[in-house]
Amino acid sequence: MRFARRMKTLGEDTQDLMDLMSLADAPGILCFSGGFPSPDTYPIDDIKKTMIEIMEDDAKGALSYSSPAGYLELRGQIAARMKKHFGLDFPAERVMLVAGSQQGLDLNGLLFIDPGDVILFEKPSYLGALNALKTYEAELVAIPTDRDGMVLEELAQALKRYGDRIKLIYVNPDHQNPTGRSWSQERRKAFIEMIQNCDTAVLEDAAYAELSFSDQKQRPLVSYDQKGQVIYLGTFSKTFCPGLRIGWVCGAKEVVDKLLALKTNVDLSPAAILQRQMAYYLRSRDLDAHIRGICKLYRRRRDVMLEAIRANFPAEARYDIPEGGLFFWVAFPEHVDTKEILKRALEERVAFVPGGAFYPGAEKNNEMRLNFSNMPEEDIVKGMSILGRIAKGFV
Amino acid sequence: MRFARRMKTLGEDTQDLMDLMSLADAPGILCFSGGFPSPDTYPIDDIKKTMIEIMEDDAKGALSYSSPAGYLELRGQIAARMKKHFGLDFPAERVMLVAGSQQGLDLNGLLFIDPGDVILFEKPSYLGALNALKTYEAELVAIPTDRDGMVLEELAQALKRYGDRIKLIYVNPDHQNPTGRSWSQERRKAFIEMIQNCDTAVLEDAAYAELSFSDQKQRPLVSYDQKGQVIYLGTFSKTFCPGLRIGWVCGAKEVVDKLLALKTNVDLSPAAILQRQMAYYLRSRDLDAHIRGICKLYRRRRDVMLEAIRANFPAEARYDIPEGGLFFWVAFPEHVDTKEILKRALEERVAFVPGGAFYPGAEKNNEMRLNFSNMPEEDIVKGMSILGRIAKGFV
Repeated sequence: MRFARRMKTLGEDTQDLMDLMSLADAPGILCFSGGFPSPDTYPIDDIKKTMIEIMEDDAKGALSYSSPAGYLELRGQIAARMKKHFGLDFPAERVMLVAGSQQGLDLNGLLFIDPGDVILFEKPSYLGALNALKTYEAELVAIPTDRDGMVLEELAQALKRYGDRIKLIYVNPDHQNPTGRSWSQERRKAFIEMIQNCDTAVLEDAAYAELSFSDQKQRPLVSYDQKGQVIYLGTFSKTFCPGLRIGWVCGAKEVVDKLLALKTNVDLSPAAILQRQMAYYLRSRDLDAHIRGICKLYRRRRDVMLEAIRANFPAEARYDIPEGGLFFWVAFPEHVDTKEILKRALEERVAFVPGGAFYPGAEKNNEMRLNFSNMPEEDIVKGMSILGRIAKGFV
Repeated sequence: MRFARRMKTLGEDTQDLMDLMSLADAPGILCFSGGFPSPDTYPIDDIKKTMIEIMEDDAKGALSYSSPAGYLELRGQIAARMKKHFGLDFPAERVMLVAGSQQGLDLNGLLFIDPGDVILFEKPSYLGALNALKTYEAELVAIPTDRDGMVLEELAQALKRYGDRIKLIYVNPDHQNPTGRSWSQERRKAFIEMIQNCDTAVLEDAAYAELSFSDQKQRPLVSYDQKGQVIYLGTFSKTFCPGLRIGWVCGAKEVVDKLLALKTNVDLSPAAILQRQMAYYLRSRDLDAHIRGICKLYRRRRDVMLEAIRANFPAEARYDIPEGGLFFWVAFPEHVDTKEILKRALEERVAFVPGGAFYPGAEKNNEMRLNFSNMPEEDIVKGMSILGRIAKGFV
């Protein structure tokens, strides 16, 4: 059989991600590799009660096909939350529900990318997003970052160099995956100023935006956007649970309408029962209080991991203290290869993601991403002690 | 903003489908337009009990990310059912779960189609499938059909004419959407003999295979396939309920592995809770008995519709009596335009799908598709009486 050309570009990066996902299923492993929220935070009892409510109230609606744009009540609830938390003014009609933000990434790839188009992204960046976008045979161009976000001098050079070939810029400005860093407010503003002269779309992946450990929330890029260039991707996977597969996309009307047509083609109808689950929950429960609880737990786990890293890792390890999100990003001296550390760590049943996975096409292997949300405190302590001991042998 | 080239090919066909889906939501309409199973058949009480069981048993698993291939127990259960009903020997590892068979269509488009590739399909054929495949900029070539399936002389000509440009043949051999016809056993065998000399994949959409009104089940195309060319698409949307969004794809190992890599990119993780719902149901309940009940109901509704058509439609109307599935396919004399009938019918709150929607790119408008599964008997009688009266004015 002869496959499409795109299958040649789907190489080992995807395999890596699949292996990671399968590692996460292995029992008994101290797993710092996932980007998973802690199942301990799922409001299981509320979800169960809500399910029963739906089945008593609206079972036929919940089990039937439904409109591709998704359950209107939930779209309105999301619009209201975005207004409340970020001052964003999207009417429900411009909020489209997707099966997790990964589907939002895929649909944007379909919408924008022809073979050979250029996508700019942060270096390093989220593997799964880059794989989704690469499916459409884009050329991926990494833009260096610093602590405040994308380095704008580098972005300016790329804009000049690639010009009209650039169709999309993918960014993750809040508690980024993998570095845990957030863009400063000044950088956000200056970024939008710079790109508004270019005819490119920006995909703002806000998966971690609500997982802030301080009260101060950053204004999203889309709030500075005057021209409808920014497409905002949100998700309940990190703030509620990933298994309901509910994300959303907001953007200019023209963009949302086109994404909707594509969504109809790719899966026809969303899982109506899961969208109702979220809507019913939001109707009568306090998601914000729930998220505050999550942040408190993750903050504690971050502190435990920080202390354990300080106590166990070689003195040469460099890292920032994440102010939200799910990840520590640890850099070792250039000669250290964290893939080798991983091999040793897996022998002792500890997993993390080697930094190289976040630099597609590049050879930069001296970093590691450590998830702190998903393991209990004692396992964090144990895992960091093992990792630290192994790392010392490589430094 | 500049969109991908494929957006130009996503035209009115998709809009049609979206409008249909939205019509289905309108209250009070006598709706013969959907391809929907009857919500009266959903085993609501069992689903509710199963949901509670899952939430008590395995809530964390059900609400977390899970492996892209899907819940292994369910894959095994599907493999066992396919063995039992159709004598098919697919191990669970070659059964991949998808979010409804529409996602299976989309993933196969991604897997096989480069711009300009040719896809052969039955004339007429299912709109939603063609739209999914068209997304990847294929050239769609319709092959005429008769009562026994695709006309093989016409297929032979197309195989010769398009040669290596043909990447995929899409067929729906059981109680086809829209015609309700099934391929004869001889035609199936001869079709496989003909295509096994060509380097093309065949997508066998078996959405209606289990909705047979007689005890006799047809052997699927894939059962004749010696070379691993046929990819089989199944779904629980018509035999259980569409809202769980559970379909499956079986094929050669190479094909399933590649589809799996693509699925990881397009939505990362399935909705684990819905896959468990289906698995738990199959564990302890009798789906076959449930399907027998559905078939009994639909057969009765078919009989009611048949009688109402006979009593009310103009004498010039031509149709076969469907032996399964969800649809009547009614042809009027060539000069009749069923789009015009629809406009009049909607004024009286009756909906169906004009036949032209199933002939992409062609102008053939004298047929209509009537769904008989989704309306109670009295509404079928009422609806056919209205439609018959209107149609008489056009003949």
